[in-house]
Amino acid sequence: MYLKNAWYCVSWDKDLKDQPLGIKILGQKLLIFRKQDGSVAALDAVCPHRYAPLHKGRLENDILQCPYHGLEFNSEGRCTLNPHGDVIPPNANLRSYPAVVQNLAVWVWMGDPDKADPSLLLEEQDWTSSDKFARGYGYTHVRGNYQLAIDNLLDLTHGPYVHVGGFGQEPRKMGLKYPMNHEFFVEDRKVHSRYYRENWRTNLFFRPFFPHDYCDQTTFMCLHQPSNLTLDITVLEVGAENGLPSEFIAPSFHFITPETETTAHYFYAAGHNKLIDDKTVTAKMMEGVRVAFEDEDEVMIRDVQEAMESTDLLSLKPAILESDIAGVTARKMLAKMIAEE
Amino acid sequence: MYLKNAWYCVSWDKDLKDQPLGIKILGQKLLIFRKQDGSVAALDAVCPHRYAPLHKGRLENDILQCPYHGLEFNSEGRCTLNPHGDVIPPNANLRSYPAVVQNLAVWVWMGDPDKADPSLLLEEQDWTSSDKFARGYGYTHVRGNYQLAIDNLLDLTHGPYVHVGGFGQEPRKMGLKYPMNHEFFVEDRKVHSRYYRENWRTNLFFRPFFPHDYCDQTTFMCLHQPSNLTLDITVLEVGAENGLPSEFIAPSFHFITPETETTAHYFYAAGHNKLIDDKTVTAKMMEGVRVAFEDEDEVMIRDVQEAMESTDLLSLKPAILESDIAGVTARKMLAKMIAEE
Amino acid sequence: MYLKNAWYCVSWDKDLKDQPLGIKILGQKLLIFRKQDGSVAALDAVCPHRYAPLHKGRLENDILQCPYHGLEFNSEGRCTLNPHGDVIPPNANLRSYPAVVQNLAVWVWMGDPDKADPSLLLEEQDWTSSDKFARGYGYTHVRGNYQLAIDNLLDLTHGPYVHVGGFGQEPRKMGLKYPMNHEFFVEDRKVHSRYYRENWRTNLFFRPFFPHDYCDQTTFMCLHQPSNLTLDITVLEVGAENGLPSEFIAPSFHFITPETETTAHYFYAAGHNKLIDDKTVTAKMMEGVRVAFEDEDEVMIRDVQEAMESTDLLSLKPAILESDIAGVTARKMLAKMIAEE
Repeated sequence: MYLKNAWYCVSWDKDLKDQPLGIKILGQKLLIFRKQDGSVAALDAVCPHRYAPLHKGRLENDILQCPYHGLEFNSEGRCTLNPHGDVIPPNANLRSYPAVVQNLAVWVWMGDPDKADPSLLLEEQDWTSSDKFARGYGYTHVRGNYQLAIDNLLDLTHGPYVHVGGFGQEPRKMGLKYPMNHEFFVEDRKVHSRYYRENWRTNLFFRPFFPHDYCDQTTFMCLHQPSNLTLDITVLEVGAENGLPSEFIAPSFHFITPETETTAHYFYAAGHNKLIDDKTVTAKMMEGVRVAFEDEDEVMIRDVQEAMESTDLLSLKPAILESDIAGVTARKMLAKMIAEE
Repeated sequence: MYLKNAWYCVSWDKDLKDQPLGIKILGQKLLIFRKQDGSVAALDAVCPHRYAPLHKGRLENDILQCPYHGLEFNSEGRCTLNPHGDVIPPNANLRSYPAVVQNLAVWVWMGDPDKADPSLLLEEQDWTSSDKFARGYGYTHVRGNYQLAIDNLLDLTHGPYVHVGGFGQEPRKMGLKYPMNHEFFVEDRKVHSRYYRENWRTNLFFRPFFPHDYCDQTTFMCLHQPSNLTLDITVLEVGAENGLPSEFIAPSFHFITPETETTAHYFYAAGHNKLIDDKTVTAKMMEGVRVAFEDEDEVMIRDVQEAMESTDLLSLKPAILESDIAGVTARKMLAKMIAEE
Repeated sequence: MYLKNAWYCVSWDKDLKDQPLGIKILGQKLLIFRKQDGSVAALDAVCPHRYAPLHKGRLENDILQCPYHGLEFNSEGRCTLNPHGDVIPPNANLRSYPAVVQNLAVWVWMGDPDKADPSLLLEEQDWTSSDKFARGYGYTHVRGNYQLAIDNLLDLTHGPYVHVGGFGQEPRKMGLKYPMNHEFFVEDRKVHSRYYRENWRTNLFFRPFFPHDYCDQTTFMCLHQPSNLTLDITVLEVGAENGLPSEFIAPSFHFITPETETTAHYFYAAGHNKLIDDKTVTAKMMEGVRVAFEDEDEVMIRDVQEAMESTDLLSLKPAILESDIAGVTARKMLAKMIAEE
């Protein structure tokens, strides 16, 4: 069902402050907190004594107090105090998970701790720290299996049907074909899905940043298995080479973390290299992204999940189109990785 | 569970305009739309590509566009366009269902299309088009198995207990018997349940149409298997023959369509042959009907469904009264028809 | 799952007036009503004819009328009238249950009626009728297995973690032990859990009744199997003997009745022997109790129930502390009683 030996996003780094965070991922309740040295601890979130929700407890000096009977735990999950007696039972400890910060996000390794491999993290992206970019963040709870959210991102042909609102795409005339210049390839644990459009009407969503009616647009989507995607959009003047001052670059993250079999967390962030000092512009862009993901994609994914009555798309033998190649390949790759694990 | 080779009501004719309608019946998601020639198409409502809800798609020139990736389907369910490539997979077509308009309603045949038999439709009723009648319409979602709604209609002894509100019936004094003059018979696929009352206090609900304190009332209920009922009420002056100018006639439809095992659609319409030009009177009558069905019957049916914890009433071995004869007979008839199918 | 041969609380005596009461206990829908002689009848709440909710019916002269078709039942559950025919089927009667009033509450015996034993009722407590006490009442619906509510009461070490609000307890400093002087013993069907504190800072909750900064406090909790608890708190001046005029006594009831496997009814009442003529003080005390039980305990129990994903705590092999002795003993006792039954 899930690949365990992998890094999953549980929070934006900036959102993990002095309160512990409770989150369910891969069907397990986890507790995340910031340690005094700035690093992050990830522990099982349920007290082994009476199953209380530990993320509702007090956190002081890297020690967490259970909100029910006051057992205390350190950042490795060891029970350090039973306030009511002399004995700490050997099964009163919490499982801990490797956790790191990278690419603006907090990541947890859900499999064998000895196999936790930092090289499997998405490599640090320049735009996350560059002063040439402004950045915004968001989160959407998805009422569908995480692979539906991945499919949705790997096949962007849905844009002009689903995103007439948030991304301001023009709806398609019926009865016509709209082939896209699409490139697809697999590399290690990555699935690339790239779209090229030349002399294309500039998307309304990009107009504040790129004031030309027509453009050449490149859209690079990459899935880093099992469930984290990067999307890099570049908008150029028609026929221009990359690197001109007018070039608009919008990189983004789409980190999907399974919550249960039929729900997922969707952490997204986006940057832009124009109008970077105008916070209103960034806020407006992120509101468009929120509408697109929350009011448009998520509603579709929820409808699909409900209609499927399953989490295994391929077992339903759907009609498969050429445009499904990235999504189907990603599903088969992941199924193989899970089976090998 | 359901009789498949039968016509089920999915909408009032007047309510099916230029937007496609999504409705679940017999556990299946259907899509209904009006064709340009005025006839009706009924298709499976889930896209065979990615399980998107097709009733949320665009409809133009009898072609429906999937709201997710834009596949197009004609009114027979054939996929006519894949906008993103050259191939339309053979399994990209939708199942279609025979659909017709009759008696103010849209009907769908859920079984073998080759067996779709117009003679099994409820025969056209005069009052639906006569200028001697005014008409009103309604719909209630029922949180109970469809057979509970049928039972409720076939045994009208519940009136003075359940309908003290909407139908303004006088509650019964406790400790007394209230035998009704009841006639019951079966004819082909029909179950008739008829009640006669002579020199009876006129129901408050009928007073605007029939301004006499006492009346002779005949109440003819007929189930057309599997789940569509007609109710014809006639109110006469005491001892009068049918046909006097003061005769009040109120025919009505009660079309029940199973949605799931424990929910149903209830389409109702009613006519009246007095004050037919006063829309306020019709509206007030229909509001009384709505209160009776939605706030009184439906709440009772929901409570009963919850208490039964089953959909098979007879298997629970309930106490059976003489007044249950029509309902029990109808259940046994339908069980036999389903078994034969 | 449940002990059947036992008395369960279904209502406060004062709350059972002239309307019948419907309540689900031990998974069964019951109907309770007050008879004209002041005693109480308890019957199955579902009509054997068509599964209608009888507690919504009319009650006159100890006769209950079904709200669907008007069948009438007497207080022993016998069907006394079928208003629509001559025959009352033999299976049209309702099961009745022994029911009595004691300790301000209405009690129903859910097992074999021949074994209904008044001596198994909680013995009448003086404070329920004494003019030396004022009294208040409450009810909370608990979204957890009834045994979680019992555990919560038998181990009061949770107070300073959970009840910083309603009971105004001071939160504990982290890193320190807080051993309590605890006495535990079993006696017949009772489990006693007693706490003694000397020279203790007076709880804010008791200050209106006991205006001293420090006190000796005794807290006697007793479970009467299967699920009814008494709690007697006495607050004395430091070093004083019982019986001084300043002695503050707060007895209370905590009657837990299983509703379903994962929900319970919690009826609570409390008395106080100071300021007994000031209804504002009683109301304020009961509001503090309500906050503690409803907003604090109940939320914790719900979280625990959800995290356990089971109703059998011990089968999960939790970490067990010395402070769990009363709860664990009570669970083992009850499991044995249920197995013997």
